[in-house]
Amino acid sequence: MYNDKFQYQTDTIVALSTAPGKGAIAVIRLSGPAAIYITNSIFHGKNLEEQASHTLHFGTIRDEGKIIDEVVVSLFKAPHSYTKENVVEISCHGSDYIVEQIIKTTLKQNARLAQAGEFTKRAFLNGQFDLAQAEAVADLIASDSRLSHEVAMKQMRGGFSQEIRHLRAQLIHFASMIELELDFGEEDVEFADRTALQKLIYHIQKLIRDLLKSFEFGNVIKQGVPVVIVGKPNAGKSTLLNVLLNEERAIVSDVAGTTRDVIEDEISIEGINFRFIDTAGLRETLDKVEAIGVERTLKKVEEAAIILYLFDVGTTTPTDLAQEIKALNLIENTKLLAIANKIDTLVTTNLEKYETIADCIAISASEKIGIENLRQKLLDKVRVNQLDTSNQTILTNLRHYQNLEQTNNALNDVLTGLNEEVSNDFLASDIRRALYALGEITGEITTDDLLENIFSKFCIGK
Amino acid sequence: MYNDKFQYQTDTIVALSTAPGKGAIAVIRLSGPAAIYITNSIFHGKNLEEQASHTLHFGTIRDEGKIIDEVVVSLFKAPHSYTKENVVEISCHGSDYIVEQIIKTTLKQNARLAQAGEFTKRAFLNGQFDLAQAEAVADLIASDSRLSHEVAMKQMRGGFSQEIRHLRAQLIHFASMIELELDFGEEDVEFADRTALQKLIYHIQKLIRDLLKSFEFGNVIKQGVPVVIVGKPNAGKSTLLNVLLNEERAIVSDVAGTTRDVIEDEISIEGINFRFIDTAGLRETLDKVEAIGVERTLKKVEEAAIILYLFDVGTTTPTDLAQEIKALNLIENTKLLAIANKIDTLVTTNLEKYETIADCIAISASEKIGIENLRQKLLDKVRVNQLDTSNQTILTNLRHYQNLEQTNNALNDVLTGLNEEVSNDFLASDIRRALYALGEITGEITTDDLLENIFSKFCIGK
Repeated sequence: MYNDKFQYQTDTIVALSTAPGKGAIAVIRLSGPAAIYITNSIFHGKNLEEQASHTLHFGTIRDEGKIIDEVVVSLFKAPHSYTKENVVEISCHGSDYIVEQIIKTTLKQNARLAQAGEFTKRAFLNGQFDLAQAEAVADLIASDSRLSHEVAMKQMRGGFSQEIRHLRAQLIHFASMIELELDFGEEDVEFADRTALQKLIYHIQKLIRDLLKSFEFGNVIKQGVPVVIVGKPNAGKSTLLNVLLNEERAIVSDVAGTTRDVIEDEISIEGINFRFIDTAGLRETLDKVEAIGVERTLKKVEEAAIILYLFDVGTTTPTDLAQEIKALNLIENTKLLAIANKIDTLVTTNLEKYETIADCIAISASEKIGIENLRQKLLDKVRVNQLDTSNQTILTNLRHYQNLEQTNNALNDVLTGLNEEVSNDFLASDIRRALYALGEITGEITTDDLLENIFSKFCIGK
Repeated sequence: MYNDKFQYQTDTIVALSTAPGKGAIAVIRLSGPAAIYITNSIFHGKNLEEQASHTLHFGTIRDEGKIIDEVVVSLFKAPHSYTKENVVEISCHGSDYIVEQIIKTTLKQNARLAQAGEFTKRAFLNGQFDLAQAEAVADLIASDSRLSHEVAMKQMRGGFSQEIRHLRAQLIHFASMIELELDFGEEDVEFADRTALQKLIYHIQKLIRDLLKSFEFGNVIKQGVPVVIVGKPNAGKSTLLNVLLNEERAIVSDVAGTTRDVIEDEISIEGINFRFIDTAGLRETLDKVEAIGVERTLKKVEEAAIILYLFDVGTTTPTDLAQEIKALNLIENTKLLAIANKIDTLVTTNLEKYETIADCIAISASEKIGIENLRQKLLDKVRVNQLDTSNQTILTNLRHYQNLEQTNNALNDVLTGLNEEVSNDFLASDIRRALYALGEITGEITTDDLLENIFSKFCIGK
């Protein structure tokens, strides 16, 4: 089903657009043809309907004469707004009670509560941006590291969409040529140059493969890199974690009173998040490596992208290390990084023998020696087989990944068809499948289900 | 120390003004002489310094050329802003990461992080409103029921301040007369009419007494009414609580995804919050009333403003009720309301015998019979000895309460002095104490400590 763009909505929606909870201010957003009319009917101050777009007005919101709050109202007149509809933002005091009262008052005036993502959905339907860009808005809100932010921003500003649309435009040309041939039926005309089509498909498949390949890294960017620290109880795991975390603590969010318990076990190094997974169980079972419990805990290790094996270099001989790594089934595992801790307790440091057993670096967590080297090593581990982020488009969205795979499969079918000289019907149908899958990414083709699926994951008010 | 009003600040402060956490949008506020200049230096779009006050501008915030976010900037030029300084509000995507990056970028341009309440403190220092009004802003944000909202709104809009200032103006007249007499030293002049002064003090003390008296109710409004439900395990306590809570559930906050676990045990009836206190311990000990544990749990009951004794009217005889109430030391306790539950299981309901033992009503929690009557009874219990809220100013702030008490004491000393015909020195000094205490309420007199104490309790960004 093709999407009717510019299908202006007739009703006016309302929702809290800022995070819920106590704050100095909260912002309630209305969008729709009656947004300004509705707000004006509950606002005491200037007549909002006579004011220019992009202006701010102080006044009070009243319900049956009773003042609910002193507010500042922002006016955005269609089409110069986020949704391209009339939009009003009411900035009130940040109390849930007041927000609730104001929203209720707008409902009495025939606004209705917005569904999740409905503002952005309207922005999409009204042509403000395409679907991939709309999805990037949610990614942007969820972004919590430099790289996840960078990728979402690039996508929101249309970089990714442009690439997809460019691929699609090239395919469309051939599709129309082949469909033209169909019109001529039995006559043996050939408008579409088969060799050029084949070449184009190779080219497009190369680009798609690069994008698909980037998804592994994109996922790392979006979800963070899972890391386990394994080691005996006295190896210094918590000291190391604390040192890594303390370097990371963001001054701003702390001062602002933001509780971000989630970073307790997450650090960001040069824009990449590393998530430290609890292996409490493993530490205990390490002392009795024969125990049946080992297998269960080893599973956690397998799920990690990086395994740090932390040991006390003062009490662990190279033979000990070799035995422990063997017990953990980590011999020649490229995910493994052995960390010789407590080098400050040694007079001379000779790591050579350890290095023959595993990739190994020396640190002192308590004296903060070698920490920067460790951070670089963590980055290196991620970047092995990874891509250069600077100029490459990084795929982070599973939906886009699946659609690109579908495109690729359809193009394989086109290639097979070309080789086997199948009829134009089949060729045209396969190309159309590829075009459909590509078109769904940017929303040139949409279904109600697809939109429902995408926007229902947004938060309310966006 | 007298306060220098209009002490314009030279630095520019910045903070997140909306609640922290994920939301569609977040608002970062800057205030100070360089607010527009600083924002302009990181903003790509129109030149903000050339734009009119109360206008909105779309653009991007950049740090060293890199886009942090697409934003809408609101401009408020001094003195037409909340703080009466230049104020800029940056409305960005509601991600903590983005908020942090934007704030960091403003800090590089010499903004500094705002302290708690600093925006409102500046608004106060710059004469936007007085101290009692500033305090009402925090109350307003914290308001979670109709009445707490109503009282805070009235105070923020200056109703309370006006009353205090009126009292103070009358006293000032006499103070200056008496100080004038002091100037004449030995000459036996009397500018201040002693009888009129006495009459005025009686009048002021009457008003102060009313305000002090209203504090009990004000506290109830602000903190909620503590209620315990006591009863044997099968009396139906949780059914009753659920019925009361379910009637209360606010549609709007539910739909908006706001988690308000706090109302799990709190209901609002006609604008007053009732807080239900857990008495899990009591229920068990009730079965063995001789147990030493009773005393400890009874303490909780004592702290409550209302004690609901819930019993199964089908299995509890009036004699049982009498015994249980005696065991709980609740005989003739005006806080007690006995609730005969499960009246739907009886063929005829005769409560008379129960009513001789305690104030008693009949309900069926499971069949929702008599619930409205219970709600009214809860209200009645609060209103016994309480005030009419409609026309009366309600005192909710402990600081104001204490200052009014100080004023009252000082005025008592003035009255004693007048009776004992003490020297003008003493009279003048006592009146000054009264004026000082009154003046601190509205902030006509402030000290740094006082301001620090008040504004540090605000949230950051307000």
